[in-house]
Amino acid sequence: MATEHEAHGELDRLVGELTLEEKAALTLGSDFWHTAGVPRLGIEPIMVSDGPHGLRAQLDESDHVGIGGSAPATCFPTASAIASAWDPELLADVGVALAAEARALGVSVVLGPGVNMKRSPLCGRNFEYFSEDPFLAGELAVALVEAVQSRGVGTSLKHFAANNQETDRLRVSAEVDERTLREIYLPAFEAVVTRAQPWTVMCAYNKLNGTYASEHRWLLTDLLRGEWGFTGLVVSDWGAVHDRVAALRAGLDLEMPPALGTSDVAVVEAVRSGALDEAVLDTAVRRVLALVERTAAGRDGRAAGELDEQTRADHHRLARRAACASAVLLKNEDGLLPLDPPPGSTVAVIGEFARTPRCQGAGSSQVNPTRLDLPLDELRVAVEPEVTVEFAAGFRLDDEQVDPALQAEAVELASTAERVVVFLGLPDAAESEGFDREHLALPANQLELLRAVAAVHDQVAVVLVGGSTVQLSSWESDATAILNCWLSGQAAGGAVADLLLGRATPGGKLAETIPVRLEDNSSYLNFPGEEQVVRYGEGVFVGYRGYDAAHQPVSHPFGFGLSYTTFALTDVEVLQRGSVAGGDLAVEVAVTVTNTGDRPGAEVVQVYVGDDTATVARPVRELKGFRRVELAPGEHARIEISLDERSFAFWSTRLGRWVVEAGTFTIDVGTSSRDLVSSTPVKLEAPSIAAPITADSTLQEWFADPVGRAVLTTDTPVGALADSDLLKIIGTMPMSSLALFGGAFGFDRAALDRLVAAVDAAR
Amino acid sequence: MATEHEAHGELDRLVGELTLEEKAALTLGSDFWHTAGVPRLGIEPIMVSDGPHGLRAQLDESDHVGIGGSAPATCFPTASAIASAWDPELLADVGVALAAEARALGVSVVLGPGVNMKRSPLCGRNFEYFSEDPFLAGELAVALVEAVQSRGVGTSLKHFAANNQETDRLRVSAEVDERTLREIYLPAFEAVVTRAQPWTVMCAYNKLNGTYASEHRWLLTDLLRGEWGFTGLVVSDWGAVHDRVAALRAGLDLEMPPALGTSDVAVVEAVRSGALDEAVLDTAVRRVLALVERTAAGRDGRAAGELDEQTRADHHRLARRAACASAVLLKNEDGLLPLDPPPGSTVAVIGEFARTPRCQGAGSSQVNPTRLDLPLDELRVAVEPEVTVEFAAGFRLDDEQVDPALQAEAVELASTAERVVVFLGLPDAAESEGFDREHLALPANQLELLRAVAAVHDQVAVVLVGGSTVQLSSWESDATAILNCWLSGQAAGGAVADLLLGRATPGGKLAETIPVRLEDNSSYLNFPGEEQVVRYGEGVFVGYRGYDAAHQPVSHPFGFGLSYTTFALTDVEVLQRGSVAGGDLAVEVAVTVTNTGDRPGAEVVQVYVGDDTATVARPVRELKGFRRVELAPGEHARIEISLDERSFAFWSTRLGRWVVEAGTFTIDVGTSSRDLVSSTPVKLEAPSIAAPITADSTLQEWFADPVGRAVLTTDTPVGALADSDLLKIIGTMPMSSLALFGGAFGFDRAALDRLVAAVDAAR
Repeated sequence: MATEHEAHGELDRLVGELTLEEKAALTLGSDFWHTAGVPRLGIEPIMVSDGPHGLRAQLDESDHVGIGGSAPATCFPTASAIASAWDPELLADVGVALAAEARALGVSVVLGPGVNMKRSPLCGRNFEYFSEDPFLAGELAVALVEAVQSRGVGTSLKHFAANNQETDRLRVSAEVDERTLREIYLPAFEAVVTRAQPWTVMCAYNKLNGTYASEHRWLLTDLLRGEWGFTGLVVSDWGAVHDRVAALRAGLDLEMPPALGTSDVAVVEAVRSGALDEAVLDTAVRRVLALVERTAAGRDGRAAGELDEQTRADHHRLARRAACASAVLLKNEDGLLPLDPPPGSTVAVIGEFARTPRCQGAGSSQVNPTRLDLPLDELRVAVEPEVTVEFAAGFRLDDEQVDPALQAEAVELASTAERVVVFLGLPDAAESEGFDREHLALPANQLELLRAVAAVHDQVAVVLVGGSTVQLSSWESDATAILNCWLSGQAAGGAVADLLLGRATPGGKLAETIPVRLEDNSSYLNFPGEEQVVRYGEGVFVGYRGYDAAHQPVSHPFGFGLSYTTFALTDVEVLQRGSVAGGDLAVEVAVTVTNTGDRPGAEVVQVYVGDDTATVARPVRELKGFRRVELAPGEHARIEISLDERSFAFWSTRLGRWVVEAGTFTIDVGTSSRDLVSSTPVKLEAPSIAAPITADSTLQEWFADPVGRAVLTTDTPVGALADSDLLKIIGTMPMSSLALFGGAFGFDRAALDRLVAAVDAAR
Repeated sequence: MATEHEAHGELDRLVGELTLEEKAALTLGSDFWHTAGVPRLGIEPIMVSDGPHGLRAQLDESDHVGIGGSAPATCFPTASAIASAWDPELLADVGVALAAEARALGVSVVLGPGVNMKRSPLCGRNFEYFSEDPFLAGELAVALVEAVQSRGVGTSLKHFAANNQETDRLRVSAEVDERTLREIYLPAFEAVVTRAQPWTVMCAYNKLNGTYASEHRWLLTDLLRGEWGFTGLVVSDWGAVHDRVAALRAGLDLEMPPALGTSDVAVVEAVRSGALDEAVLDTAVRRVLALVERTAAGRDGRAAGELDEQTRADHHRLARRAACASAVLLKNEDGLLPLDPPPGSTVAVIGEFARTPRCQGAGSSQVNPTRLDLPLDELRVAVEPEVTVEFAAGFRLDDEQVDPALQAEAVELASTAERVVVFLGLPDAAESEGFDREHLALPANQLELLRAVAAVHDQVAVVLVGGSTVQLSSWESDATAILNCWLSGQAAGGAVADLLLGRATPGGKLAETIPVRLEDNSSYLNFPGEEQVVRYGEGVFVGYRGYDAAHQPVSHPFGFGLSYTTFALTDVEVLQRGSVAGGDLAVEVAVTVTNTGDRPGAEVVQVYVGDDTATVARPVRELKGFRRVELAPGEHARIEISLDERSFAFWSTRLGRWVVEAGTFTIDVGTSSRDLVSSTPVKLEAPSIAAPITADSTLQEWFADPVGRAVLTTDTPVGALADSDLLKIIGTMPMSSLALFGGAFGFDRAALDRLVAAVDAAR
């Protein structure tokens, strides 16, 4: 808060010099990508740009919405890819690169990252989001935001909040109870705001519990600023404002793109009529000016409008490293990968994606890459001439029907090759901002092709391309190895070659579960809603929390990923320090990780916490800590992960706060949410959260309370029921109701009032 | 409404003569089972009694809550049993018998039936409820209520509404959206109220969406009386009133049991202070007096206080017939049943339940039976001396541990017997009013016993006893035949003998799905809620609607049941008459049912409707008609079932009414929800429910509207997107948002306003 406070003096002066019309104008952009300037006062406009796996800086004013092009920028792996690296340091490296490109292109704020949860694998924009787990998403986003902002460029944490689908996204109301919001949909935002202070937060399009996010005062002000201490600016998603005055009151500072001539006029009129307190407008203006000031150092006059060659080359190398780290090896029977083709052999590369790669998804995040590596070319470069690489497209990307000629050609090639790699994936039309998928299946022609290829070759490696989860269960048996490369940016082609050939070792872990069937996902019955309402009926049981709670088998669990080497996790220690009551609880988890194989590689140690004795329904286990570690063959490292009170807490809607209940918790340590090497019980003491007993408390609650039990067993016949079978039947009746039962339980209302008095006296 | 209206004159006069104190007193009972009387005005008290599978008339004033006994009455099969007969006529026969017993015992109102839905198979009171399907529950309850009331005895339709669990039932708030209420939790109530006018409705204990049912004006007045035309009296569940004045205002007429000295005083004070309009009190009093008057003929002075011998005998026979009809044959490999033991053979009867039967569940519905048949005795009577019946208890009912001696004895017996019948089931402690079950498993000792018996005998018939669904998947393979007899009342012992020996043929059908796993049930993640809130997160997808939507395998589907004979359904005809627009839509379904086996038996023809083209998420199919038919061998019958508009409708929350959408529906005819003999598409025309397009309608909505499409394609560049891929991406944007996009789509706000004007002009 200090920063905001200190800056107030200068900003207040500036605000005081502005006319009402100028102030109104400043809370709108001046065009699609710029804030408004006030030249007479030296207030400069600043430019923002879509992100965050690369910049979509549209320098040409004539075309704003991505139909035309943007300035070339490095296209890094999209969020669903890079999240699979489970590597905050990698995010930090990418963040620094993004900031450099932003400065070069004159961009002051990068519109990202998006930390919405993958509530359903169907969400069309899942490729832009990190995970189905809020802890993982939060850790990664904190690293990215800190890195970008450390170089004088702002971020925009989005889409705040509960924007978890594309269907009817501008109108749909997400109906989410507070516990679910607090535990699932908000923690990633909370982590970034409280730890990294993003310079801006972008409100979502949708409604939350009936109120547009752009007009949601609890969300934009009470929670964001009041509870979390946010000091930056709230910007609208593009087109999310419906009532500019209501949005200002709720805490939305900047409307983008500007409804020029409408919103500004409405604000002026509202102030003039007294409907809007001018102080509210002044606050928003001050935040806009503060952002302009914050970004001034980044707008250091050196914006070149394009990236220099060195930057392009450096960042392309970083993109390749990131793509390598993002890949998840899902299956590798017979050690098929790395391919290791013998000299003189032929590698069959099959699938149009090898020649026409998808490196990112469609929509506002679409980057114009500085270059684009083709997997086929990169494989050729890597192995020729000792090894021959032959290609067959196998299928068309713009058609789901089998092309008999293409398929026959591919099968023919596979039947004669020593090594076979088939590139399968989601075509462009399958996933995008703007609409959701309707199923998880790969196109039928691709699966037909794979089946035909597997019929003539008994070792088929599949490279999977796509921004979201696809169903594997129907075809996984046709593949000997599966390497999921996601949408891994402009250098994915080279990365795939590195990974297939063993020049890099896959170390990625799933940031989202791959279910056996779409129907197994807990949101299935409630996605995407109807009549402009979507009920989050599964509550906190999102992603692996749902599959685990329902004991569903999955194709591959959250956190899962293989390697070309092997690891052992040993010597798990769990040490409890401090206490809940003392406010200093810490549980330290230590584990030794050893690379027991013969290649260097990375393992991700994951720590999950389960509450075994909760009075509310809690997930079986929840990710509360992780650490990626790279080890040479034979090398080992001692990993220490610290859990705090929040790691054990649930949000009590009744009490309106985070609560750790006394009881037994289980600390699971593993290499995925279902590959656990140890489960350690931890017993925590904590203050009781039971409400004081009253006349309206149930008989069971009276017996559960030591004083209540003593009073009942001393003073009434009902005391004899303390441990009886009858208690199970009538125990949920409030004492006040039982008192009506004709004295059958040994007390009437007058007697009950005396019992309550006795309890109160005994406290 | 006529009845209520005509009676007003006399009742108004009576109300006018009452003092305020007398009026307040009349809206409370006088004791646990009686309304208040006013002797000076000849207003008699009337008696009510728990039900409805038999009367629990507590004639002794000193003990009210069922710890002691009630007058002997016939114990019929509980609701979950008798519902399995799918036979409204049987319910009518039982209703007439109940009324006769009520009159003999001086009972004026039977407190039932309960038509709450089986949202979860865990609900402890499921044995008191009919089904997981509202249509089936409604049809059965209508028959029962009409029959009871036709004999001058009232009913109390309960528990209104959304009382679908026992856990914290007096405080929990059921959070249910309106569509789900209207389509699942209310229709059975609606059917009974609108078609049978129950003399009373009992409000539930729980809260609905935050408001106690006892204080829920929308529920008790707007919906019940305003929409459904209810003319009777609303009584509280026993102890459900928390604020008598608020309850009166909401439409709760009679508080039971009475909070004497509290509620009456509060009412008087509220009227005196002006806080309560005396007219509200007068209305409640008038309804109490109307009930007293309605029940006068039934209190004809001949109440004997007990049932005569002839009545007992007649009703016991009816109870036996009802128990036979209630049984569901779940499995019958090798035609094991009927048992047909050869002369000289031994039948091993194993399981304590054969000697110690459970005929009903625990709680307020517990009847003191006039007699109790034991399955073991009845089997002996039926087959001895030609066949020997030997018994072994096998396990204890009060312990889940294997008793080695009992088990060994049973296995020994089984190993030497020609026929083996094992009685398994839920012990008393497993299910009751007052608490919910935590799992679906049978006790471990019973399953151990079955496994051991199956190891020594290759044909084991299992008789299943219990009021709710149990998991079969873990042990079904150990049984050659399974006959589910539920809790079938005092004559169940004889009925079991009839069924096992083929003197009766099972014809029951499951009124609730038997899932493979509890976790497959759609309420699993949200049952029973926490912190006094339960979210009905599965929406309309309750019971088979959930399993079908998620394509879950089930052990046995809703509507399923085998017979000793076989049936063929042929010549399905579906004929559409009238129209939605004309308000006279009727779809007539006809099918020929033929008994193709060699025994008489009953089949239940079931008609399900699915909406193939709905704009909201609808169940795959929903029961909309059924008919039970008894046929002799070789006999056939032409069954005709008529569907009306409501059969095709969903509740639109947006429009606040039932809607039939134009499109294709599928009429499924079958003998269970998953054994379908035909699926017939029906194409219905219906008025469009699309909202008129405006500036805030999406681009897709504009293109979907003929006028909007014409205007866009004529007047703007965006018209060219009508069938493009880009439309999929931007089509969900409101036009008003697209207008902000810098004219990129060929219109700005001013142009949009002109487009809207053009659309309006073209209408």
